[in-house]
Amino acid sequence: MKYKLEIAYDGTNYAGWQNQPNSISVQQVVEEKLSYLYANKKISVRGAGRTDAGVHALGMTASFSPPDTPLISPDKLMKAMNSILPDSIYIKNVQTADQEFDARFSAVGKAYTYVICRSTAPGPFLCNWCYHSKRSLNTDKLRKATEFLVGEHDFSSFTVALSKTQKNPIRKIYRIEVKEFGNFMCVTFIGKSFLYKMIRSLMGTLINVAEGKTEPRKVREILESKDRSKAHVTAPANGLFLVEVFYDEKALEKFKLTNLPFLNNF
Amino acid sequence: MKYKLEIAYDGTNYAGWQNQPNSISVQQVVEEKLSYLYANKKISVRGAGRTDAGVHALGMTASFSPPDTPLISPDKLMKAMNSILPDSIYIKNVQTADQEFDARFSAVGKAYTYVICRSTAPGPFLCNWCYHSKRSLNTDKLRKATEFLVGEHDFSSFTVALSKTQKNPIRKIYRIEVKEFGNFMCVTFIGKSFLYKMIRSLMGTLINVAEGKTEPRKVREILESKDRSKAHVTAPANGLFLVEVFYDEKALEKFKLTNLPFLNNF
Repeated sequence: MKYKLEIAYDGTNYAGWQNQPNSISVQQVVEEKLSYLYANKKISVRGAGRTDAGVHALGMTASFSPPDTPLISPDKLMKAMNSILPDSIYIKNVQTADQEFDARFSAVGKAYTYVICRSTAPGPFLCNWCYHSKRSLNTDKLRKATEFLVGEHDFSSFTVALSKTQKNPIRKIYRIEVKEFGNFMCVTFIGKSFLYKMIRSLMGTLINVAEGKTEPRKVREILESKDRSKAHVTAPANGLFLVEVFYDEKALEKFKLTNLPFLNNF
Repeated sequence: MKYKLEIAYDGTNYAGWQNQPNSISVQQVVEEKLSYLYANKKISVRGAGRTDAGVHALGMTASFSPPDTPLISPDKLMKAMNSILPDSIYIKNVQTADQEFDARFSAVGKAYTYVICRSTAPGPFLCNWCYHSKRSLNTDKLRKATEFLVGEHDFSSFTVALSKTQKNPIRKIYRIEVKEFGNFMCVTFIGKSFLYKMIRSLMGTLINVAEGKTEPRKVREILESKDRSKAHVTAPANGLFLVEVFYDEKALEKFKLTNLPFLNNF
């Protein structure tokens, strides 16, 4: 059997989800704490995906096979982990799963939300959890631009060349939803999977559209050019949240953002 | 003339508002940045009150006399300060005032809000800006208990002996308002002034009432005993916000909390 963990984290002070040689990742902290619970046996955790340095998660999922010891109930494992993890990482759910379950390959989709603060002055709070736009934002233009991005496309214009492992630049975005909560605008991307820095690249251009600096139809041109240099700069990491990883189509179809990601409680 | 500053800050990493010998205070940072703007002339800023280490402000006020140099317009001063202050401190308003104005002694009242998160699991966000209660909270009992506290009383049971400068333990609370925003409960105290750690002391006991561990009428007994040892432990600093300092009675009477303090923008 395996365990499936659902994890929320404040990514501000981490080098992202995935283990890195010279900095602290969320994965490393989770693995170290699991190892501590399992009498210092090495535990390898498989995340549903990587998140970049500074990106947050409301619902990262991860799976691991427990070592050959008496089974810990999911509830006990969750409580034990939350009592030893730092405040910045919180396990919100633990379930058992079949041996075949793999947090990454069993996923049918993911929802990411990018949070923009549209106040003229955002104040000293929340600056780690949103992008602050100093211009007035046009929601209609933003929505119009997202229409060109939904569906299956070659997103070469909206990614950063990572490595040879990412040969196929074609991805399918099922939906993009724009919601407003007070001074905050949330743009949620629901898709099977995304290219490296794809959402932040898309947001860099979409923020330009919302701010009136780029016309919505220009987004189609940029997409069709398959040329990264045509798009705008990558939006900062701090506004991005991995909100949910889906393991069945129904959950994916039903998903709706109902609150600002950092206001969600479990 | 003087300048009146209205200041918001995330108090998490400061030793409070007031200057301290061996740690960094908000006042110190504000004075250093003002001094930088005024060609390294020493500037002393007078705050409306002290806030403890870890306590936040949405509307601290401070006054200072500018040195004998060409006057800077309030708007320019605000922009210049915000461009050099750390993200954790934000000047939300600057006005000129008469020479007689004193941020502390001209004030007619203050509003403090204490934020309690009532979710069973608060997650990795917001933990610096609220007190997390693991029990279910009874709002009616909390409201009932606050009725005994409104008005003029000897609050010796709800303060921490600070120094000989604070001889008079009598204070007047004009109103206490309990409001809920989703998973958060906010208790706002409006009064002329408060004793050292008075609101956190009151909240320590009020949280016990809301959690069902203390009956509301017990609060009157504790108050009348004038004995600090009868009250419960002081509530943690992180849930407390100095929300507004009032300089006229009308603003004080009209004041209403309309949002979670850390969600307010300016």
